[in-house]
Amino acid sequence: LIRVGIFGVGYVGCTLLVGLARLKAGMIDHTGIPLGECVAGYRTKDIEPVLLVDVDAAKIGARVGDFVSMYPELDAESLNDLPMVEAGVELGSLEGMPIMHAGLDQKLTLEECAQRIKNMIKDRDLDVVVIITPTEEIRRIESIEKLEDAIRADRKDDITACQFYSYCALSVAHERGRGICVINGIPSEIANSTAFVKFAQRTNSVIIGDDISSGQSRLLSDLAEHFRQLNRRVLSVVGGNWGGNADFLRLEDSKRKQSKKTTKTGCLSDVLGYDPPSDIKPHAYIGPLGDKKAILIHWPYQAFNNTIDELWVVGRISDSPSAAGMLIDMIRLGKVALDRGLNGVVPEINSFYCKRFGKQKSKILAYRELMEWLAG
Amino acid sequence: LIRVGIFGVGYVGCTLLVGLARLKAGMIDHTGIPLGECVAGYRTKDIEPVLLVDVDAAKIGARVGDFVSMYPELDAESLNDLPMVEAGVELGSLEGMPIMHAGLDQKLTLEECAQRIKNMIKDRDLDVVVIITPTEEIRRIESIEKLEDAIRADRKDDITACQFYSYCALSVAHERGRGICVINGIPSEIANSTAFVKFAQRTNSVIIGDDISSGQSRLLSDLAEHFRQLNRRVLSVVGGNWGGNADFLRLEDSKRKQSKKTTKTGCLSDVLGYDPPSDIKPHAYIGPLGDKKAILIHWPYQAFNNTIDELWVVGRISDSPSAAGMLIDMIRLGKVALDRGLNGVVPEINSFYCKRFGKQKSKILAYRELMEWLAG
Amino acid sequence: LIRVGIFGVGYVGCTLLVGLARLKAGMIDHTGIPLGECVAGYRTKDIEPVLLVDVDAAKIGARVGDFVSMYPELDAESLNDLPMVEAGVELGSLEGMPIMHAGLDQKLTLEECAQRIKNMIKDRDLDVVVIITPTEEIRRIESIEKLEDAIRADRKDDITACQFYSYCALSVAHERGRGICVINGIPSEIANSTAFVKFAQRTNSVIIGDDISSGQSRLLSDLAEHFRQLNRRVLSVVGGNWGGNADFLRLEDSKRKQSKKTTKTGCLSDVLGYDPPSDIKPHAYIGPLGDKKAILIHWPYQAFNNTIDELWVVGRISDSPSAAGMLIDMIRLGKVALDRGLNGVVPEINSFYCKRFGKQKSKILAYRELMEWLAG
Amino acid sequence: LIRVGIFGVGYVGCTLLVGLARLKAGMIDHTGIPLGECVAGYRTKDIEPVLLVDVDAAKIGARVGDFVSMYPELDAESLNDLPMVEAGVELGSLEGMPIMHAGLDQKLTLEECAQRIKNMIKDRDLDVVVIITPTEEIRRIESIEKLEDAIRADRKDDITACQFYSYCALSVAHERGRGICVINGIPSEIANSTAFVKFAQRTNSVIIGDDISSGQSRLLSDLAEHFRQLNRRVLSVVGGNWGGNADFLRLEDSKRKQSKKTTKTGCLSDVLGYDPPSDIKPHAYIGPLGDKKAILIHWPYQAFNNTIDELWVVGRISDSPSAAGMLIDMIRLGKVALDRGLNGVVPEINSFYCKRFGKQKSKILAYRELMEWLAG
Repeated sequence: LIRVGIFGVGYVGCTLLVGLARLKAGMIDHTGIPLGECVAGYRTKDIEPVLLVDVDAAKIGARVGDFVSMYPELDAESLNDLPMVEAGVELGSLEGMPIMHAGLDQKLTLEECAQRIKNMIKDRDLDVVVIITPTEEIRRIESIEKLEDAIRADRKDDITACQFYSYCALSVAHERGRGICVINGIPSEIANSTAFVKFAQRTNSVIIGDDISSGQSRLLSDLAEHFRQLNRRVLSVVGGNWGGNADFLRLEDSKRKQSKKTTKTGCLSDVLGYDPPSDIKPHAYIGPLGDKKAILIHWPYQAFNNTIDELWVVGRISDSPSAAGMLIDMIRLGKVALDRGLNGVVPEINSFYCKRFGKQKSKILAYRELMEWLAG
Repeated sequence: LIRVGIFGVGYVGCTLLVGLARLKAGMIDHTGIPLGECVAGYRTKDIEPVLLVDVDAAKIGARVGDFVSMYPELDAESLNDLPMVEAGVELGSLEGMPIMHAGLDQKLTLEECAQRIKNMIKDRDLDVVVIITPTEEIRRIESIEKLEDAIRADRKDDITACQFYSYCALSVAHERGRGICVINGIPSEIANSTAFVKFAQRTNSVIIGDDISSGQSRLLSDLAEHFRQLNRRVLSVVGGNWGGNADFLRLEDSKRKQSKKTTKTGCLSDVLGYDPPSDIKPHAYIGPLGDKKAILIHWPYQAFNNTIDELWVVGRISDSPSAAGMLIDMIRLGKVALDRGLNGVVPEINSFYCKRFGKQKSKILAYRELMEWLAG
Repeated sequence: LIRVGIFGVGYVGCTLLVGLARLKAGMIDHTGIPLGECVAGYRTKDIEPVLLVDVDAAKIGARVGDFVSMYPELDAESLNDLPMVEAGVELGSLEGMPIMHAGLDQKLTLEECAQRIKNMIKDRDLDVVVIITPTEEIRRIESIEKLEDAIRADRKDDITACQFYSYCALSVAHERGRGICVINGIPSEIANSTAFVKFAQRTNSVIIGDDISSGQSRLLSDLAEHFRQLNRRVLSVVGGNWGGNADFLRLEDSKRKQSKKTTKTGCLSDVLGYDPPSDIKPHAYIGPLGDKKAILIHWPYQAFNNTIDELWVVGRISDSPSAAGMLIDMIRLGKVALDRGLNGVVPEINSFYCKRFGKQKSKILAYRELMEWLAG
Repeated sequence: LIRVGIFGVGYVGCTLLVGLARLKAGMIDHTGIPLGECVAGYRTKDIEPVLLVDVDAAKIGARVGDFVSMYPELDAESLNDLPMVEAGVELGSLEGMPIMHAGLDQKLTLEECAQRIKNMIKDRDLDVVVIITPTEEIRRIESIEKLEDAIRADRKDDITACQFYSYCALSVAHERGRGICVINGIPSEIANSTAFVKFAQRTNSVIIGDDISSGQSRLLSDLAEHFRQLNRRVLSVVGGNWGGNADFLRLEDSKRKQSKKTTKTGCLSDVLGYDPPSDIKPHAYIGPLGDKKAILIHWPYQAFNNTIDELWVVGRISDSPSAAGMLIDMIRLGKVALDRGLNGVVPEINSFYCKRFGKQKSKILAYRELMEWLAG
């Protein structure tokens, strides 16, 4: 069994929980889980969610089955035996959202919050922590020591929810003398933070992240590789997407939009070797589109003999199931990495599953390296 | 220098000739040539077209500069020193086309034709033969001996132009005791013919083919790999294209359409591992579209938790420059293979550049193997 | 009440029946019915299906509720009080389809069949006959007398199911001395047949047809008007569609494909005033697409100062609900026309709802004339 | 002859001038000019540009032939006899643009500027004034008197270039006792300003505007009519466009973006009768796209029986030739309106050619009313 804690029980988290239950019940097959039923001995049914954390006042203290039907395509039918949702820290992550929150940080100091979160992780004896809280403003930390200073001084503006959970998880690993795997499913920098990676190394822990690459950015990356190999020159790129889930609602806030934007253009120029003029970002919240976002890619390029051609891609992509299917692999790969005694980051995992990790390569090529790592 | 003969001086052939001339004149850069200026020591300017063969009565005896402006985007400005176009064999390859032809086979027996073609190849001391004649009905041969029987008996219906040229080239290699590289740029089976491959092995020759993968089928293959790696299930595929060049005019003939169709669906199921219902083929000749064909890909798929999403790709792709850019690599790689003493087929070259070669893999993965082969 | 007989209880017919039942039950609103709830005093709930006819052996003698769930999106929940399906004539309309049929024409002469069908129409005292049988090969008749000769001589190859039903309906009108409205929802020529129109005039009857314009052809027509008014020149048109309902399965048969093709290109040149090179037709049967067909429109055009621009339209359009929504108007308008003492064809109705009727105009303009007719 | 002054000699202005010259030279035909060669007796060659005004320092004092080649597709070949470009007023219209301007308002008071502009209009005896200056922030005026107060007080922040030119033109009409036609080709409110319309009525002048409807917004309007007539419910609309001409560069400025946005959504809800969630606006400047902007329309809708379908439109649309072709009609129609003794606004002209004018109707329906007006 792999004991998992999920921080952020939103659309992705609920799809993950419902999907796992439906898999166990044989209601769905392994379509959409890249590595399928079995990864190095771990089957999908070996994933055991033992801790659920959120800050939405309506979810805290409730069972997932009580609120899951708020998300289209999801229902409580196959769910059972899930733990009650417990309160986490908000630290600004719901700013501007129409949600009443009841985070621990409303009433407690950061030190008290850290104690509570660490106890949850310790008590449930977690192997893997999955963070899929709302996209937050990207902030960087200089060192774990400075972060601990902020906690001690209760400077709530200096730390984000994602950083806080990651810190607590790694601290537990340190205290209990056994590593943990932290999976960061949002754009915040954890796997990309030298400070966090060093902390993970010191605690025999593994970080997988940052952000899950499951949709349009992944497609852009492979499209870029396709064109690079043909030495065709991409003249410009429009990569727009519009959706109606909470992620888009949050992205209306411009600072967050910036977070997403940075994630995507970087990947393209890493693969192409140059940076074509582009407009790649979530463009607007359009309620009726729901979780099935509408995407556009416009891709004019130069071929041999100065010929100008162009491609357009449009389509509908469901965000949450795409991400949830990836997480089912990431959880098991994180456990495999811990089993193998690895620490810090595992480039082969991050390159295939995540949007941001060092210099990007196309996902198709990253896959081959992942396969070699798994086999080796 | 690499001494090249081009059999079929149509749109692709002329784009290749004009492109090479413009490269020498510095009028264009190496965009659209996958490996760029230099491949294992051979530069693009080392390619020397010393033999041009066609069956169009209006081209035989003429200079390319006299007729090249019939193709949009091409002009004679940078051309010079190209040999005069000589007569080849038609053997049904222009059937149904509004072109008056003057193939050698109109007046001579197949044996006489073979002698003429072999003499051309021998006299110009060709290293590489490029066949880009019109798409023809696919016919298979049992053995080189049976093919020689047909030539001796002058059974013109039993052999296609592409087979005839390939046979002549490999025969010259045999006679002169030095291998040759045959590049088959059309769907006919040469690299896929056991008989031809054996003949190439016996004559220290190399075959590159079949058909050039430069456009929509290549994109389909990489898209398939992208989805296979995510374990998303492709539910059906529409892969339509419409164009106004001679290739589309010929494909109106249903037997030829079948040739193209076979080429493309095979590749998709090889990569995916299953065969989704599909309609992948050139659909119709639409004159005003010219060489810049209009393409459509419709790609509905199943993701995690039974979610159904879909992608659409549309665009304009110029056939001839795409193919010509690939040929500039293929010619040099063929020479490299001969230099290295190889014979028969070189899987690493065929897999990346050609549509049909054994079990298909995605082009992005084939690229990596090509790179390793080149380096090794 | 409007007493309606439905000949052909397939996907469209069943969607019509389920839709009417759901409207009565308040389960759906009037979205997709062009004129909404009320047309000249007739409400949607005034439509009473009193005769259902088909030739599928599995449907004859059954209730719609027994088989309706074979069509996605449809169920028997709201259905009640519908008459049992009775046997009609097949006359080749299921040729090549994987359906076992039990048409009256298997065992009876055409004269006997006619008597049976006429009795059904007479007994139920029908106001409106809706024909939505499978697309059939288009055949023309010279005169009603010749058609009657064929029936007397039992020449089953000389008459189609659609012609047979239309003839029977108009004969009943003649016999009972009260007109009837025949709605032809398939491409066969009834409203476009001088013989049938004259027969309708003689019998104080009204013909609405031919074929229902509810999807891509309608869009093409309005797009054409948009460009005509701007005097932009359409250079070529690709209008492809792919689907997985029975209509596409039938269209795999090439003769039937021709029927559909003729329907659509005519409309475009009527509006534009010229005939751009085009490929407009159903392209292939792709099972997983079901009733929600995939469409493509590629529309390059010339604007001022020799500029070449282009539009692409892709999308998913559900055939059956689109047609069923139109039929709900057509049935009521047919009754209104009879009430007003009209006979033959009513151009204002046909121009807006049908694909084929004389010289085509754009649907947006036809709408205005329909409104004036309704008001006047 | 129709004596025309053009205020703003940018891409649209130059396309208009080059196009008129090419028409006279027979180099192009009337494609893209909605009403073609002749409108109520006025031929395209009757349009005589006798005044050209701009504020770009590089254009003032130059001939159009000297700078026209800065715009792709345009050259000086067919140009001759055009007047030299004269200095106009900038009044903030180039704010944020990388253009050095030399507007009269740099050194003169508003009263002095007005005198200069009025003299130009008077001296050239203009029939028609065409304003196609850069998109500017929309500002409203209460009355012509308040505007005259601002001019007298030299409050340059209280008046825009478009307002200034319109005011000067109408003032000349007043002074000379003969009406003028003001065509406002940008989103500023002139035809939508009660104050300006009243001033036009007092001076026997005609205003055509505001903004030219030539591209995506026009298509949206007709698409909306298409769906409204079928009573299909549009669920949401994405209407994005990306381009590389100066208009997109200016729109990067957020206030101006707001101007364009307001223009477009209004039109859609006027036609549909409700306001679906939408994101309709120019999205970003992408240099390599040039004047041929890339557009996207995503259009999901509900059809009969709660069916959800969707359409996507993508394409490339050249802004400047589209607008220039419309202006050639508008100029002649303005003269026709003056000839007929009309004043104020002519709804039939504005509805068809302009984006903003009262309650919007679809362009296809507006066309019919325009035809009736012309005929009457």
